[in-house]
Amino acid sequence: MNQDRLTCVELNQVRINDSFWNRYIHLVDEVILPFQWELINDRVEGAEKSYCIRNFRIAAGEEEGEHKGMVFQDTDVAKWLEAVAYSLAKKPNPELEKTADEAIDLIARAQCEDGYLNTYYTITGKPRWSDLQEGHELYTAGHMIEAAVAYYEATGKRKFLDVVSRFADYLWEVFGEEEGKIHGYPGHPEVELALVRLYRATGEKKYLELANYFVRNRGKRPCYFEGEECVQKKEYIFPEFADFDLDYMQAHQPIEEQKTAEGHAVRAVYLYSAMADLAGEYQDQRLLEQCDELWKNITQKRMYITGCIGSASFGERFTSDYDLPNDTNYSESCATIGLAMFSNRMFQITRDAKYMDVVERALYNTLLSGIALDGRHFFYVNPLEVVPQVAEHNPAMNHVKTTRQEWFGVACCPPNIARTLASISNYIYAVDEKENTLYSSLFISSELTASLGKQKVRLRLTADYPRSGELLYEVLSASGTEVTLAIRMPDYAEGFSVRVNGKEAEGKQKQGYLYLKQNWTMGDRITVSIGVPFRFVYCNPRVHENLGKIALMKGPQVYCLEEADNGSYLKSIAVSADTPVTEEYEASILNGTLCARFKGERIDYRQADDCLYGKNAPVYIEDTFTAIPYCEWNNRGKGEMVVWMREKRD
Amino acid sequence: MNQDRLTCVELNQVRINDSFWNRYIHLVDEVILPFQWELINDRVEGAEKSYCIRNFRIAAGEEEGEHKGMVFQDTDVAKWLEAVAYSLAKKPNPELEKTADEAIDLIARAQCEDGYLNTYYTITGKPRWSDLQEGHELYTAGHMIEAAVAYYEATGKRKFLDVVSRFADYLWEVFGEEEGKIHGYPGHPEVELALVRLYRATGEKKYLELANYFVRNRGKRPCYFEGEECVQKKEYIFPEFADFDLDYMQAHQPIEEQKTAEGHAVRAVYLYSAMADLAGEYQDQRLLEQCDELWKNITQKRMYITGCIGSASFGERFTSDYDLPNDTNYSESCATIGLAMFSNRMFQITRDAKYMDVVERALYNTLLSGIALDGRHFFYVNPLEVVPQVAEHNPAMNHVKTTRQEWFGVACCPPNIARTLASISNYIYAVDEKENTLYSSLFISSELTASLGKQKVRLRLTADYPRSGELLYEVLSASGTEVTLAIRMPDYAEGFSVRVNGKEAEGKQKQGYLYLKQNWTMGDRITVSIGVPFRFVYCNPRVHENLGKIALMKGPQVYCLEEADNGSYLKSIAVSADTPVTEEYEASILNGTLCARFKGERIDYRQADDCLYGKNAPVYIEDTFTAIPYCEWNNRGKGEMVVWMREKRD
Repeated sequence: MNQDRLTCVELNQVRINDSFWNRYIHLVDEVILPFQWELINDRVEGAEKSYCIRNFRIAAGEEEGEHKGMVFQDTDVAKWLEAVAYSLAKKPNPELEKTADEAIDLIARAQCEDGYLNTYYTITGKPRWSDLQEGHELYTAGHMIEAAVAYYEATGKRKFLDVVSRFADYLWEVFGEEEGKIHGYPGHPEVELALVRLYRATGEKKYLELANYFVRNRGKRPCYFEGEECVQKKEYIFPEFADFDLDYMQAHQPIEEQKTAEGHAVRAVYLYSAMADLAGEYQDQRLLEQCDELWKNITQKRMYITGCIGSASFGERFTSDYDLPNDTNYSESCATIGLAMFSNRMFQITRDAKYMDVVERALYNTLLSGIALDGRHFFYVNPLEVVPQVAEHNPAMNHVKTTRQEWFGVACCPPNIARTLASISNYIYAVDEKENTLYSSLFISSELTASLGKQKVRLRLTADYPRSGELLYEVLSASGTEVTLAIRMPDYAEGFSVRVNGKEAEGKQKQGYLYLKQNWTMGDRITVSIGVPFRFVYCNPRVHENLGKIALMKGPQVYCLEEADNGSYLKSIAVSADTPVTEEYEASILNGTLCARFKGERIDYRQADDCLYGKNAPVYIEDTFTAIPYCEWNNRGKGEMVVWMREKRD
Repeated sequence: MNQDRLTCVELNQVRINDSFWNRYIHLVDEVILPFQWELINDRVEGAEKSYCIRNFRIAAGEEEGEHKGMVFQDTDVAKWLEAVAYSLAKKPNPELEKTADEAIDLIARAQCEDGYLNTYYTITGKPRWSDLQEGHELYTAGHMIEAAVAYYEATGKRKFLDVVSRFADYLWEVFGEEEGKIHGYPGHPEVELALVRLYRATGEKKYLELANYFVRNRGKRPCYFEGEECVQKKEYIFPEFADFDLDYMQAHQPIEEQKTAEGHAVRAVYLYSAMADLAGEYQDQRLLEQCDELWKNITQKRMYITGCIGSASFGERFTSDYDLPNDTNYSESCATIGLAMFSNRMFQITRDAKYMDVVERALYNTLLSGIALDGRHFFYVNPLEVVPQVAEHNPAMNHVKTTRQEWFGVACCPPNIARTLASISNYIYAVDEKENTLYSSLFISSELTASLGKQKVRLRLTADYPRSGELLYEVLSASGTEVTLAIRMPDYAEGFSVRVNGKEAEGKQKQGYLYLKQNWTMGDRITVSIGVPFRFVYCNPRVHENLGKIALMKGPQVYCLEEADNGSYLKSIAVSADTPVTEEYEASILNGTLCARFKGERIDYRQADDCLYGKNAPVYIEDTFTAIPYCEWNNRGKGEMVVWMREKRD
């Protein structure tokens, strides 16, 4: 394995200006962050109270009262601060920074003398670490650490970083294999990957070792959770946990024996992200291979075409290979983000484009389907098929919302989407400092300055992707030493050609990247042509739900049919896989979107009789259908939606 | 409406000897009743303890101890006694009768001075009627009453009837509109239809009036249940009830406003059965029309092709029109039995064959799928599609069992199946005493003696139905006055012809019955020819789950594909609706069954690659498939099963 992982380009060195992504990224600064700050301060009329900031004031001794909200309510401000950090990194905003500083001051005041930081346990006085399975203390710690590292990297200010470092120092004293320490680990992974980030930001090796301890100790027999007093006494914070198996929290077997993705999907991919981090840091080839095996299990057997994961609502979890129901699935937005995190880490270690293919699928589809075009409404659950009348009356779909909600009681997904959008450039580019190589993985229009060896390269990528597969890289400045530009060749590309200054480029192809190595000079133009026509896609026939069906894609984007364009009874529609698809840019809908038009047939319900079972075949009529990107569904009111269409075989 | 409802022929006047039904009916006497008696006496090794008889001994003061089991555990012995009664009615069994008498003696000793009878409330001392929503006191009372009426009718012994009459007299004092009485009604309907039976057996009008009160009071505003102290205090016997809406127990609106079948399916059809009873007794045309409207809502929009109902597991309930998922449905055996009860009552009032079409569908498919050919294993849940690997790992199918279970903790379905099988002749024949008409609805080989006016008619029906559509009725004796034989013309019949003594018969057709009126004499032979070829059936296209699919039926029987005959990946199979089907009687499987063979195509999984989403269409190969009756599925070990097959359209 490579000795060094790729690194991200610093956020302030990338300026995104992309026709497709701008609308989403702007939402973070303009809508989400201001709204969320009001929300966690309980100032949004009509919204469920958060109590998040109030809890900190109480913990700091500055206000009287009881803790309110979830045990992990602290993470709301942590996630807000993390997104704020990314925003500040890209664009100074003194007022926002002042607000953030004040929040950090409050957090610091709520920290205990010994470094412990958690308002729920501090206020309630419940024994710390008495319920690792459900208490979410380490999960909360993880989000605090991530936020602090991000804030330090964005502003250079150490205060928050010092707070979480003290906390992490305390954790180091409390947890570990040594006698006298607690031999447990978190029910919900998150602190592990956060500790790796903290190690990278501070250089303090024990944080890495603690992360390593948490991961390697997981699932050892006898299982730590089963011995917890609260579990023995069946005193559950979340009574529904009583029925959950250990695989729900990936504690069903020692970590090195886990070869299939099991349990709660968010927990799983957060854990696997940490495992990938550790594989890289410890140069552990075996762990890396295990990560790849888990990743393959997900992406070859347990992932939806839209890049979401988690087939079941109860447990928000993985189920079994090829079990991918389109209507009862949970497929949480956060799980998709976690899958992108895990995949990006694997790419940074291996340089293999297959991981970025999945990142792209996740980001272009389920990340964005989680957020409305107004930035004020969110999906946690991301079905691929909705019939509102059915979903609203069948308890098997109680978790499915037929319209995006304003902001949920458990606010995990909206801020997670926000922090991902705010740091999206971490997925666009990556740098191999030793090899002087810049990786261009996602085709999002942007300008960047990348430090490669002793020089800085300034580059502009102009794209209208995936609407068009024509990309233009322009070298804005370069100092004349050899630098490699590695351009991802997507797995779905139907044709991929590159010209440098008009001449066909010759480059090495490896693991899905085309490597172009030369002395670049200002004005060099690299034009890339990626074939991204609309295409109909089949599902592996082992997936029962999609048998006899096809889906429409363009590049990484999955398309869907909506009632708004096609009327109801969408599931009756049947289409030939070789039907021609025409592209039509519609400026008037969905703030402008590229629609697909194609012919097919559908059942004529005017001719359907009232009998429930009979000898009359339904009558089909020809019709023309309009598909829109899945990520934009449900922005025009409630209605049916379907991704997988029945294939008409001639 | 007709002034008089049809009545059943007394059980001891019908002797069934049918190649198809014998095997199931024999199970009741030979396997189920002896086993259940051991079970409720806690003498079955390895089985969950019932405590049922023990609870009665404790309540009678003959043993020390606490009540154990469910609040409605008493119904186990009641259902056993009801089935015993039907068994004794058909065939004397002094030993069984002695055992039953002893059980009845015990029940009598457990009855309170004032007539109240319920071991749970008697033993625990909890206030009677304090939890009508969940306490199941009236539900339990209903099953006691049904058992007692059946036992009285079978044996002529009054003891048990007197016990429940005293109980009913007490109920009459406790419940009603008058001041000082409780204005409530049961959370789980059952006592209503039982009280009507008790009224018919005793002639005591107040039992009818009490049933009428319970039904008519249901759902009035403000809702009685919402005012119950236990509900106010959220002290639930079944905590999962906390989330249930009032429509779960059909209390969401006044009964006369209920036009769609809602909530828990068993409760619904038990309630509707009582409503039909009352419509008949009170000659209430409006109530009858409402019953028909509810019945049509079920059978035209909410019933599976196999005659089961209840699309959702959570709440074991109806969901919405045309929502009929084949794999996550609950479709409890008891609900199908209730649907047959409701339909039979509607037929008895209206003489309309459409109701018996549904009875036949329910009995030939889901009633029998509930019980294994060994009589020792049972399904509560009756899916139309099972992939074990999926069902065992997806929590949305936690309720689905991939093999029949020995006997469940809640023992509602097995004894309900037993009592239905033991009294199946109530569905085969019915008598219109005023019109001297004998209705022959189900084509099950049998001999009967029917009292019609002043004469008795003895008749033999010989059939091998639905394997063959040729029926023979022979008049064994008749006294020469005019009598009408009404033969049902099934709605699915492809051709229906009748000859009397070799001559084409002329008869009046009305509401699906052919009426043959004449002076019958010994030796008269009526031959009926019903066209029952295998046929492929379409589902109403408003049912999303079955779009593009067809099912195979023969007469009332639904056929299915099983892994045992066809290998795995059954859902990949596609068949043309006009493919010829050959009948093959297989003596070697399933104790001898009529199989269907037909050609079609399936995906060749050897040629399927590992990629989850791609451009390669699956490769289909031709194959020949074998279908068996749905009711016999899962008698050869665990495996895939599917009713609805993909239609191959050419």
